[in-house]
Amino acid sequence: MEKGYVQVYTGNGKGKTTAAIGLCMRAFGAGLKVSFIQFLKGRYTSEMRVFEKLGIEFFQGGRPEFIIGKPGKDDIDAAFKTLNMAKEKVSSGNYDLVVVDEINVAVYLGLISEQDVVDLLNSRSQNTEVVLTGRYATQKIIDMADLVTEMREIKHYYTKGVEQRTGIEV
Amino acid sequence: MEKGYVQVYTGNGKGKTTAAIGLCMRAFGAGLKVSFIQFLKGRYTSEMRVFEKLGIEFFQGGRPEFIIGKPGKDDIDAAFKTLNMAKEKVSSGNYDLVVVDEINVAVYLGLISEQDVVDLLNSRSQNTEVVLTGRYATQKIIDMADLVTEMREIKHYYTKGVEQRTGIEV
Repeated sequence: MEKGYVQVYTGNGKGKTTAAIGLCMRAFGAGLKVSFIQFLKGRYTSEMRVFEKLGIEFFQGGRPEFIIGKPGKDDIDAAFKTLNMAKEKVSSGNYDLVVVDEINVAVYLGLISEQDVVDLLNSRSQNTEVVLTGRYATQKIIDMADLVTEMREIKHYYTKGVEQRTGIEV
Repeated sequence: MEKGYVQVYTGNGKGKTTAAIGLCMRAFGAGLKVSFIQFLKGRYTSEMRVFEKLGIEFFQGGRPEFIIGKPGKDDIDAAFKTLNMAKEKVSSGNYDLVVVDEINVAVYLGLISEQDVVDLLNSRSQNTEVVLTGRYATQKIIDMADLVTEMREIKHYYTKGVEQRTGIEV
């Protein structure tokens, strides 16, 4: 059985989650069925407000706090809940586009394994395009993808001391 | 007088316009005033439908056809109209975020000059964050920017013969 395509947005530059949000908007605008699943982040952000307004389904599987140091049991539980949610969506055949945001970072932090992502991709429906984001995409995930963009940071105003601003970064 | 920040998304990978659309959504979600100005493209796409639905201002300054070969007078006229529209928006002080999509390509094609972009950036209000997108950003534009991300194509399914699909690419 043929599968839906897999897109990966990785690298250290700004624009990965932002591009995934843009993809959701474009797909929604075309009348496609979309789901946005987010690892690691639990803070309600400006873009979630737009998802709600449009009626785009989203799920934030992280905790409001950033993980600093070694992830705890709560972090791992939250990641597995998010993984299961993602599996349900990509395998159901009910979605044209499923974004799984920051999943690469969840692997990098050891919250889930690379094999979990491989299994997730293998479980996807032929109807469903899957978008994976986050720094540190592994070679195996890149090999499984049909489209991979690396966002490379050439210059970032963080280095000028600009704080995260509501509506621009979050 | 201090100016608003400048972000540039360039490179040969997928995700530049898409990220700019995501930025518009995030800013809109935060209640910011947004304008999306697009060079070169004149085809009404899925994301424009979402802009309309949300009431986000946009202007498409291209012609429906792609430019093939040497740009004609109509193309140059359309680009100057787009440039003037962008100038009006970034200098007015009425916008928190102005995206000028594909402007780097307009320079690359010779429709406008690098100096036109420099002047555009210099005319911006201190209240306004300006986002420039498109392949081939010149070094001078990169030097003027506060944040630059290069989208690098690692893999693209075009090479597998996948056509542009409504809701995914356009």
